[in-house]
Amino acid sequence: MPAKLIDGKKIADMYLTEVRDYIKTHGIMPKIVTILVGDDPASHTYVDIKQKTCQKIGIDVEIHRPVQDKDSILQLIQKLNNDSSVNGILVQLPLPPGINEEDIISRIDESKDVDGLHPMNIGRLAYGDESMPACTAFGIIKILENENIELEGSNVVILGRGIHVGKPLYSMLVNRNATVTLCHSKTRNLSAITKNADIIIVAIGKSGYLTGDMIKEGSVLIDVGINKVNGELKGDIDFDSVKNKASLITPVPGGVGPMTVAMLAKNTLSAYIRQHSND
Amino acid sequence: MPAKLIDGKKIADMYLTEVRDYIKTHGIMPKIVTILVGDDPASHTYVDIKQKTCQKIGIDVEIHRPVQDKDSILQLIQKLNNDSSVNGILVQLPLPPGINEEDIISRIDESKDVDGLHPMNIGRLAYGDESMPACTAFGIIKILENENIELEGSNVVILGRGIHVGKPLYSMLVNRNATVTLCHSKTRNLSAITKNADIIIVAIGKSGYLTGDMIKEGSVLIDVGINKVNGELKGDIDFDSVKNKASLITPVPGGVGPMTVAMLAKNTLSAYIRQHSND
Repeated sequence: MPAKLIDGKKIADMYLTEVRDYIKTHGIMPKIVTILVGDDPASHTYVDIKQKTCQKIGIDVEIHRPVQDKDSILQLIQKLNNDSSVNGILVQLPLPPGINEEDIISRIDESKDVDGLHPMNIGRLAYGDESMPACTAFGIIKILENENIELEGSNVVILGRGIHVGKPLYSMLVNRNATVTLCHSKTRNLSAITKNADIIIVAIGKSGYLTGDMIKEGSVLIDVGINKVNGELKGDIDFDSVKNKASLITPVPGGVGPMTVAMLAKNTLSAYIRQHSND
Repeated sequence: MPAKLIDGKKIADMYLTEVRDYIKTHGIMPKIVTILVGDDPASHTYVDIKQKTCQKIGIDVEIHRPVQDKDSILQLIQKLNNDSSVNGILVQLPLPPGINEEDIISRIDESKDVDGLHPMNIGRLAYGDESMPACTAFGIIKILENENIELEGSNVVILGRGIHVGKPLYSMLVNRNATVTLCHSKTRNLSAITKNADIIIVAIGKSGYLTGDMIKEGSVLIDVGINKVNGELKGDIDFDSVKNKASLITPVPGGVGPMTVAMLAKNTLSAYIRQHSND
């Protein structure tokens, strides 16, 4: 039986509608400032998608482009931290070489860290506190929950240990009683590990890396990869070889991608509400 | 061939001597304040051991016992945060029921968090920043490094997802390129997972839980358990059934325990040095 395709766009729209309705009902306008440094074309595309989607549901989005220099970025962050009209601050990663990401991200006011990548917000996950969860990781959790995938006691394997997905997702899955294995480029005998997984999340940025012979029958596959191959977007999973073996797959595009933006909107609204809780 | 016993006390003494020599040479006296709430007998023992060991190497240790009430604890923390003569603040866990540990720990000035349990310091580990690592987890890393155990590419299984060991250790092992699986009470088929592990760390607080039939030949076993059984201290590993199958084991007592205190001393000195870096 062919795997069911998970419609990430549909799930994302559900959350976006929730945020839009809240904004409309309460007559508010939460505001995000995106800091874009450098000329990475993919970053430009993502910033663009986030802006369009957020604006459509009533979130104001400003894009700032400071010069490529640590002090200028930190000065801008300081200014935005102190500006009470700004509810969320987002630094688009990756930063150009030579600028340490932790140094920059950790200077954002953690209550405005709508990307959920501030070390404080990453650390909170380990305490089971998901008040500002990393967007993509949170989006994956929401997909799994919406599809009623059992997490408690499941063997989950994550490929890729980045700060956007692997690291925060591992905490969120442990919070939901999954048994989690984090694999990466130095992992030996990867197939032996993935073949025992009930759920596999692939976030390594290598087109078609996970193939049908690496998975067990009926597994749930979440594809976080976005790779441009001959002008086409391809995931990290080799769709053709897994489609008759897996039970569920997120497609690329239309799977995890839309969820990231929806969770950004959700985090922004949460940040706004918390910042105004004493009004 | 019987497993080699790792002498945690000997490794710990090496680090304690390093800290003592630095303190002596520089004529300084770093100071820790321990906050002890409630009447847990094990907590009293740990606080006592930490105090004696630290004092012996020239660290001043004060123990404060606020009333069992969140506001009183937070007031005390605030006072200690503002007291520049205090370099380290340590809240002995567990706290009595009804007092949320994250709420308390996250109010310690993170630069004085010598236990390494502040969400900010837990989150930093995910960025590869181990400037204030959780003491017990760090102690385990130091044991493995001192015994020249290869971590890169190794399959490491952690049993137990507590904030002292499982969660921070997971990040530190991933930082060293190990493939890490975190298991806990909801894990299914635990034996199938532990049998594939090169290294197993057990931190669940159940005497003799890990038995010889659950491990593979030659594995490295780290026992974090301290259980009182008929007046004797016992670890989480069933020593008799693993001793001829494992290659290395940390004994209880005398394995991980002394390392926790040594890493506390090391963190305290690091905190002191950073706090005085502009003198």
